[in-house]
Amino acid sequence: MSTGILGAAGYLPPRVIDNDQVGAWVDRDPDWILERTGIKERHYAAPEVSTSDMACLAVEKLYASCPEKRASVGAVILGTSTPDHNFPSTAAIVQGRMGLGRAFAFDLSAACSGYLFSFVTAHSLLSANPALEEVLVIGADTISKVLYQSDRKTVTVFGDGAAATRVGRVPDGYGLLTHTLITDGCHADYVGQPAGGSRRPLDATTVNARERYMVMHGRKVREYFEEVVPKLIHEVVEQAGVSLDDIDHFVFHQANPQMLADCINAMGIDPAKCPVPGVLSGNTGAASIPLVLSELRAERGDLVVMAAIGSGMTAGAAVLRWY
Amino acid sequence: MSTGILGAAGYLPPRVIDNDQVGAWVDRDPDWILERTGIKERHYAAPEVSTSDMACLAVEKLYASCPEKRASVGAVILGTSTPDHNFPSTAAIVQGRMGLGRAFAFDLSAACSGYLFSFVTAHSLLSANPALEEVLVIGADTISKVLYQSDRKTVTVFGDGAAATRVGRVPDGYGLLTHTLITDGCHADYVGQPAGGSRRPLDATTVNARERYMVMHGRKVREYFEEVVPKLIHEVVEQAGVSLDDIDHFVFHQANPQMLADCINAMGIDPAKCPVPGVLSGNTGAASIPLVLSELRAERGDLVVMAAIGSGMTAGAAVLRWY
Repeated sequence: MSTGILGAAGYLPPRVIDNDQVGAWVDRDPDWILERTGIKERHYAAPEVSTSDMACLAVEKLYASCPEKRASVGAVILGTSTPDHNFPSTAAIVQGRMGLGRAFAFDLSAACSGYLFSFVTAHSLLSANPALEEVLVIGADTISKVLYQSDRKTVTVFGDGAAATRVGRVPDGYGLLTHTLITDGCHADYVGQPAGGSRRPLDATTVNARERYMVMHGRKVREYFEEVVPKLIHEVVEQAGVSLDDIDHFVFHQANPQMLADCINAMGIDPAKCPVPGVLSGNTGAASIPLVLSELRAERGDLVVMAAIGSGMTAGAAVLRWY
Repeated sequence: MSTGILGAAGYLPPRVIDNDQVGAWVDRDPDWILERTGIKERHYAAPEVSTSDMACLAVEKLYASCPEKRASVGAVILGTSTPDHNFPSTAAIVQGRMGLGRAFAFDLSAACSGYLFSFVTAHSLLSANPALEEVLVIGADTISKVLYQSDRKTVTVFGDGAAATRVGRVPDGYGLLTHTLITDGCHADYVGQPAGGSRRPLDATTVNARERYMVMHGRKVREYFEEVVPKLIHEVVEQAGVSLDDIDHFVFHQANPQMLADCINAMGIDPAKCPVPGVLSGNTGAASIPLVLSELRAERGDLVVMAAIGSGMTAGAAVLRWY
């Protein structure tokens, strides 16, 4: 038995932020934003909506057509960089609100690679624990809450979203075939939120300063993406004993659709194999990959590559045969 | 092959907070504090010291006697409720500063159960991924930074600390024999930090309010502890096919040494089998269990029980045969 994705459902909050709005915030022409990011719209959660609220809406949608499968959830892993609280975990809150019995729950912090790291972790838990039936793997982020509204590098790119997936066992030959995860902690300063944790706790001084918001060194992130993502994809594809041409669907973290288009082009991948819902949602952090999965038109036997990078820097790639 | 703890090292920051100091903060007699908590001292990190700083000192100590084992680290899992930042993860920062190549790294958020959840996750990663040699599993928290200084319920109990463990394969019959992890998310309000995340982001109003600090419903936590921890221990001991009397060492999360003494007494466990370093460190969150491990005088073949509860509520227990 291997591990597959048995279902996926996404949620985007209703408030749409278009390039006219972002352009006004960052003092740039809307076309300039579209050209550099490939993004037309993002969605922002309302002020009273937290990461768990969006995650619960995605979970409700996931089980709407199979309510009996809630009882199969033995563990909940939630990837996020914007938890409801430092503690308790957002996964525990979702577990409680969704009535998931005593399924053990934890948040996994690996930024935009959070879903892929969580999926591989779920696969390992399932492999090592025969009594565990299914793992509910969620990616959810309300990144809008840590954006500095006039910062072009971040506000043009990020939005909010959540997506939930049923991860469970599939017959041999299907599911996860190969994967690789890496971290380059020496580049931990490329993307982050300087204040608000134990390094620089928020106080009356820091709360009004720039450092409570996300900082991103866009060029360094792009260079890292261009260097690492193709290499990891080639690595997992080779390990799976297939060629790049054999892959039917590429599920990329929607870091920046324009950067993604350049990468796909450089790698010689057919754009028709690469859904880019980020055009209408922006970069939704850990929600980005499962949001792509929630709309993926894959059929049994199709080969699917997932690939992510995120703050840390973290990165990973995986090959699945869709079940 | 199973999974064992191959080494452990702890770090407590040098600043000691005794009951005279805490008594002055919370307006109580020092003896009143000792009687209710069993704690004599806690250690607080300096203002400029973050969770990753303490974690790195524990990691340095862990590999001081076996520097060649750093190269065996394929993954880093860090349990914490007080990360340096919301992103990047504290694990990534430690990975980078300790020069651990491209070992993949993530934080795991399960509060005071964070180490036990991380250990079981490491076991699963090792079981499912033969190429993974060792996992560096860390518990680290600077809880002093989220304490409200006049709150008797929390300031009397918590302190700062970090501990790091080498987790790897051991011969059959040794290492992790049985485990159980649970979450009761319906009790997510028992312990937490209300503001500072996506539920109530810190702003100029909330930063000076009580809600940016930890809140704990002490009685509910005690009732949960008394109900759940003995049950989980009996469960894993029975699963392991041994009796409670066969266990040589009990490694408890040091939630509150006085509460622990009551629990040990009620369960009929010999106190000599239960090291309680929490008397001199308080409740150090996710660091608490690996700090006990770092001082454990276990010999090959000894049976060891680990048991934890934490915000979430999360809880778990495990039986290991020490290698």
